[in-house]
Amino acid sequence: MADRNSPIGVFDSGVGGLTVAREIMRQMPDEKIVYFGDTARVPYGNKSCSTVIRFTRQIIRFLMTQDVKAIVIACNTATACALETVENDLDIPILGVIHAGARTAIESTKNGKIGIIGTEGTIRSGVYSRVIKEMREDIEVTGKPCPLLVPLVEEGLLHDSVTDEIASRYLSELKGKYIDTLVLGCTHYPLLRSTVGRLMGPEVTLVNPAYETALELKQVLEEQGLICDPDNGSSIDKYHFYVSDLAEKFTSFAASILPGQVKETRQINIEEF
Amino acid sequence: MADRNSPIGVFDSGVGGLTVAREIMRQMPDEKIVYFGDTARVPYGNKSCSTVIRFTRQIIRFLMTQDVKAIVIACNTATACALETVENDLDIPILGVIHAGARTAIESTKNGKIGIIGTEGTIRSGVYSRVIKEMREDIEVTGKPCPLLVPLVEEGLLHDSVTDEIASRYLSELKGKYIDTLVLGCTHYPLLRSTVGRLMGPEVTLVNPAYETALELKQVLEEQGLICDPDNGSSIDKYHFYVSDLAEKFTSFAASILPGQVKETRQINIEEF
Repeated sequence: MADRNSPIGVFDSGVGGLTVAREIMRQMPDEKIVYFGDTARVPYGNKSCSTVIRFTRQIIRFLMTQDVKAIVIACNTATACALETVENDLDIPILGVIHAGARTAIESTKNGKIGIIGTEGTIRSGVYSRVIKEMREDIEVTGKPCPLLVPLVEEGLLHDSVTDEIASRYLSELKGKYIDTLVLGCTHYPLLRSTVGRLMGPEVTLVNPAYETALELKQVLEEQGLICDPDNGSSIDKYHFYVSDLAEKFTSFAASILPGQVKETRQINIEEF
Repeated sequence: MADRNSPIGVFDSGVGGLTVAREIMRQMPDEKIVYFGDTARVPYGNKSCSTVIRFTRQIIRFLMTQDVKAIVIACNTATACALETVENDLDIPILGVIHAGARTAIESTKNGKIGIIGTEGTIRSGVYSRVIKEMREDIEVTGKPCPLLVPLVEEGLLHDSVTDEIASRYLSELKGKYIDTLVLGCTHYPLLRSTVGRLMGPEVTLVNPAYETALELKQVLEEQGLICDPDNGSSIDKYHFYVSDLAEKFTSFAASILPGQVKETRQINIEEF
């Protein structure tokens, strides 16, 4: 039986999942978080599902050594490839970023046409389409892989003519499909929200699974009596960050997008788990 | 004592090193090659040297199980980070791609100003500058990291306005330094040779370390009596390809740039080595 005052484990291939951690911090400010970013093997989006499942299992074994009470796969590719495979092995709740985003997209659409943008791995898996059709089979889902958006974000070209040009090429196909709702199906993409919003136009609603996933996590923790005590110890040590490479670079990126609690990041050898 | 009819081991983080393998095939058509591409952990260019050294050691252990007579690190980042560390552990020749390129750049320059383009890891290591200055200390070396060129090549945007724009931004700094020689310090970059050549202009000589490295390898094998017999068995099984992920995708990329000998690619779990 998990301890309600234990931390929540959150992981991603790198820094993208910090957009999910940020939402959890906003919506549940008392909860502790252990974050892991697999920066030695980033990115996941251009790798096979069997490889991503192997990496995911190693990370879950590491997070279990940190006594987490729940795990959030804050990475669309890993959710797409691994969630169904690993959830039966665990006796604590494990959530991905896909179900919550899919549900919100269905609630949002009026014309029944939803677009998904994501990595090659996420789109190739067809998981969004499958999950959405399980919930409502009359919805038309169009997926579009956008492989260059992650490197462009990681190079910091958030507001740049090149990013505009590349995004415009990727999105033109979706514009031809008359979608009214677009899921940002990669945790890096909320950082390009204004670019994508401008290109798609005001008639298209953007869905950010990071926000929805934090909401879903809160609900799951409530149902299972796992919400922490508000006074469960020092707030100084609330957030712990681990990576498989380049800890300092991670710390400075994390400090730039989180509300100020990034003291240090520790490096571990994830292949040993 | 290595057998002269054993294969040459060649490795890279992914497909880039195939430009080196291709030169070896052209210059020494009788030699056997075992190629390994670390496609589960690609790219190396944005990772730390300690991580790249760990990956390199695993790959060398794998290649030794294939009884290679010599090893070529067909990756600038791995050469920059790992060559000096690993060469003492081995009793067969091991070559990187940096020394040969550096030597040719020195022979080419007339004004003593050499530029290097490469990944973050290669440029940050300062290895080209160090190697060149060891050979001739009056040379002025300017390095410029070009992190987006690898993803652009891997997406196939070899002749594209976006690649032109990004390359032009990276190269403008080097143009201001009045270099007359530019080293293509990443094994992906020969695939952008025409773009880089056009942007730099005809007065700048481009050095492709892939070509120079194959020449150096031939010389080393000759010196050590390790050139194969011309009739050392069937030519059908001359080239073997291994990767850590996505074997089929690798096979089709390799078939598109090699002269037609790519039968199949086998996937191995490199973390076990």
